[in-house]
Amino acid sequence: MINIAVLGYGVVGSGVVEVVKKNEMSISKKAGEKIAVKRILDIRDFPDSPDAELITKNPDEIFNDDSISIIVETIGGIGAAYEFTKRAFQKGKHVVTSNKELVATYGPELLKLAKDSGVNYLFEASVGGGIPIIRPLSECLAANEISSIIGILNGTTNYILTQMKKEGRDFASALKSAQQNGYAEADPTADIEGHDTCRKIAILSSIAYNEFVDYKNIHTEGITKITKEDMQYAEVMGSVIKLIAVSRKVNDKIFARVSPVIISKSHPLANVEDVFNAILVSGNAIGDVMFYGRGAGKLPTASAVVADIIDIVKHSDNGGRNVWEKKDYNNVIDIGESETRFFVRAATENNKEAKNRIMSIFGNVEFIKLERPEFEDEIAFVTMKSTEKDLSAKVDLLKEADAINGIKNIIRVEGE
Amino acid sequence: MINIAVLGYGVVGSGVVEVVKKNEMSISKKAGEKIAVKRILDIRDFPDSPDAELITKNPDEIFNDDSISIIVETIGGIGAAYEFTKRAFQKGKHVVTSNKELVATYGPELLKLAKDSGVNYLFEASVGGGIPIIRPLSECLAANEISSIIGILNGTTNYILTQMKKEGRDFASALKSAQQNGYAEADPTADIEGHDTCRKIAILSSIAYNEFVDYKNIHTEGITKITKEDMQYAEVMGSVIKLIAVSRKVNDKIFARVSPVIISKSHPLANVEDVFNAILVSGNAIGDVMFYGRGAGKLPTASAVVADIIDIVKHSDNGGRNVWEKKDYNNVIDIGESETRFFVRAATENNKEAKNRIMSIFGNVEFIKLERPEFEDEIAFVTMKSTEKDLSAKVDLLKEADAINGIKNIIRVEGE
Repeated sequence: MINIAVLGYGVVGSGVVEVVKKNEMSISKKAGEKIAVKRILDIRDFPDSPDAELITKNPDEIFNDDSISIIVETIGGIGAAYEFTKRAFQKGKHVVTSNKELVATYGPELLKLAKDSGVNYLFEASVGGGIPIIRPLSECLAANEISSIIGILNGTTNYILTQMKKEGRDFASALKSAQQNGYAEADPTADIEGHDTCRKIAILSSIAYNEFVDYKNIHTEGITKITKEDMQYAEVMGSVIKLIAVSRKVNDKIFARVSPVIISKSHPLANVEDVFNAILVSGNAIGDVMFYGRGAGKLPTASAVVADIIDIVKHSDNGGRNVWEKKDYNNVIDIGESETRFFVRAATENNKEAKNRIMSIFGNVEFIKLERPEFEDEIAFVTMKSTEKDLSAKVDLLKEADAINGIKNIIRVEGE
Repeated sequence: MINIAVLGYGVVGSGVVEVVKKNEMSISKKAGEKIAVKRILDIRDFPDSPDAELITKNPDEIFNDDSISIIVETIGGIGAAYEFTKRAFQKGKHVVTSNKELVATYGPELLKLAKDSGVNYLFEASVGGGIPIIRPLSECLAANEISSIIGILNGTTNYILTQMKKEGRDFASALKSAQQNGYAEADPTADIEGHDTCRKIAILSSIAYNEFVDYKNIHTEGITKITKEDMQYAEVMGSVIKLIAVSRKVNDKIFARVSPVIISKSHPLANVEDVFNAILVSGNAIGDVMFYGRGAGKLPTASAVVADIIDIVKHSDNGGRNVWEKKDYNNVIDIGESETRFFVRAATENNKEAKNRIMSIFGNVEFIKLERPEFEDEIAFVTMKSTEKDLSAKVDLLKEADAINGIKNIIRVEGE
C-alpha cells in the first residue's frame, strides 16, 4: 500500500483524488501496489466534499507522517509550493507536480535536491496537460539528439485564435467567449501574453537539450495585438496564425521563442484547433514525431500526475533521473541574432510610392494584397529571411518613409 | 559499461548499431552508463561493413558471454527469433525487439518467461516504428482505463492510399510507386493484406486492456480491392479511405478490426498521409490523445529499440513489467456482432428500380451520386448503423434483386 498526500485541493488536486479513486483497480494492477490518498492539505474548508475527512490545514500531519511516501504538489506558484517541495525532499518523500512555474524557475535546484535525497521529482503534468510529452521526450526519444521542438502549448490562446479565424471575431470578443466557456481565467494575462507557453517551452527545452533553459531569457510575445484583419491576410497566404513556441539547438546555444506566427495550412500544427495542444519534436534518428491532445482540464492533467505516481511506485530508485545542468552564461541566443521572416502591414495613402520604398529598403519581398475596400489604405508584404536585428532596423527605416503613415502590425512567418 | 549484442544485421539491426555509435555521448549521459555493441549475430557475410569485426555466426559467443546483458533481437519471424529469445531469458539476459510477429504470437509466454527470469522483454519498436506508443500507453496513460484505440499503423498502405487519392492512380500503379520508392517490399502481402497492421493492433490492445488479444481472432481485410472509383466516392462524401485498425473495450470483451474505412476529412486520422502513422487513444481521464510520426524506417525504428535499451539500463529491476493474461475463451467479439455502416456500390441498368429495392431492403439509406458518365451504370449508398451480420444478410438479399447486376464493392464507414 502506497500512501500519498495532495497539497492544494483545487482543480488539478481534486482531479487527482478523483482519478485515484475512479480507476483504483486498474491503477493498482499497473503499479503493482494499492495507491491511496491519505491526506489533503488546503487552507480552505470543503465541508461538502466527499474527501472532507482527509483534508487538513496542518502540513505537519503530512510531512511528519512516515507512511506517506509521495507528495502531490498542486498548489501552484513559487511560494508555499517551493517550501513544501523542499521539505518533502528533506523528509525523503517523492514529489509529483503540475506546477510549471516552479519547475521552470527552480528546476535545477529542486532536481538536484531530489537526487541528493534519493527521491524523485516528476512533472509530466506541467506541460501539455494530459498529453504524454515529458516522459516520451526524456525516455522514449532518449536515443536521439533532439534538434528542435515546435508546439502549440496553450489551450486558451489556441481557442481564441481558432474563434477569430472561424467566426471572424476580434480578439476581445474571442477572449470573452473563452472566458464564458471556462477556457480562460478572469485574469487571462498569463495565457494571452504567452507567459504560460514560455514556461512550458523552457521546461521542454531543458529536457531535450539536457541543460537548463531559463524562461526569463526566452523572447515572449502574446496574441493581444493580433486582429481579425491579420487573420484575413493569413487566409490569403494559405496560412493560419498560431501562438507558437519553438526552440532549436544551434551549435552550443539554444534558440527559443514564443510568439504569434503565420504558419502554412500544410504544417502539422496548423490543423490543431480549439483547446487542443500539439508538440512536434525532431530528433536525429526518429525524424519528426508529434504528440496531440487536450492541453488542460481537470482529469487530463490529473491523469498525467497519476501516471507519474505509478512510475515512482514501479521504479522507486531515482538513479536514472537527470538533473539540469545550469550554465554559467546565458545559453539562449539573443532574439536579434535569430533568423526569421516578417509579415508587415503598413498604412499608406500612396501605394505606388510605398511599394518602391519597401523594395528599396527590404529588397525582394512578397506583397500580399486583399482586394477589399477596407484594406485600400494599407500595404502588406513578407520579407526574405534575415536576422531580427536586421529586419527591425529596416522596419525603423520604413517608418521614416514619407509614403508610410505608420506600421499596423508585424508578425513572424514560419518557413523558408 | 553495458554490453549489448544484436541478433540480425538487417535494416533495423544495423540501424541500432548506427544509432548507438552516432549518439554515444548523449545516450551514455541519459542512461548513466556507457552502452556498447559487443557482438552482432548474422549468418551472412558483411566484409565491407564498418562493424565486420563484431559479426559472428556462432550464437554461443553471445549467449555464453556473461558480459553481455542485453540482447537486441532484430531477426524477425517466429523461428530462430523465438528460440534465441527464450535462450536469452534462460541466460538472464534482457531482450529488446522490433519483432511484432513474435510479440503478437508468443507475447504471453515470453513476457511470463522474462518476468520469471527477472529480466525485461521490451518491444517499443514493434509498433509505430519510432513513434513512442508502447511506453506512453503502458506508462504515461497508466492512470486511465483505455476505452479505444484507432490508428493508421502501416506506412506502406497509407502511402498507396495517399497516392491513389492525390494522383488518381489505381491500386496496382500506386503499389508499384511504393515499391520503386522503397516503401513496399517485393512481396508486399503482409502490408497490403493488413496482416502487419493486425499484429500491431493486437499488441496495442493487449497492452491497453491488460489481457492478451490474439491477432488470429481479429477480422482483417487489406486494401487490394480499393479502386480509384471508390476514392472518388469518398471525396464526394467529404471523406478519405484509410486502412484503419480499431479496437474497443465492450463490457467484458474486445472489439478489434483491421479494414479499409471511409473516414470524414474532419477526423484527426484523415490528414495522416504518405508513410506516416498515427494512433489515437481514448482514456477515461485523458480523453483523446494522438501520437504521430514515421511508422517505419531504419533510424526511427532503431531509435525506439535504443530507447528500450536505455530504459533497461536505468531500471534493470523488472518488477513493474506486466504480463498479458491469456483468457481461456475467445475474448474478441465476433465481427458479425459488431456494428458499422456499409458503403455499397452495385451495378445496375435500372437506377429507379434498384433504388426502390435498396430502400425496401435497407430502409433509410443515403444515396451517393457521382455525376459522371462512367458511374452511370451503378448505384451507391451508405446504410444506417447495424450489425455486420444484419448488413451482410441484406447485401445477400440485394444481390438477388433483378435490377442489381452485382455488388462492386463494400467499404465500412466510420461514424454515426
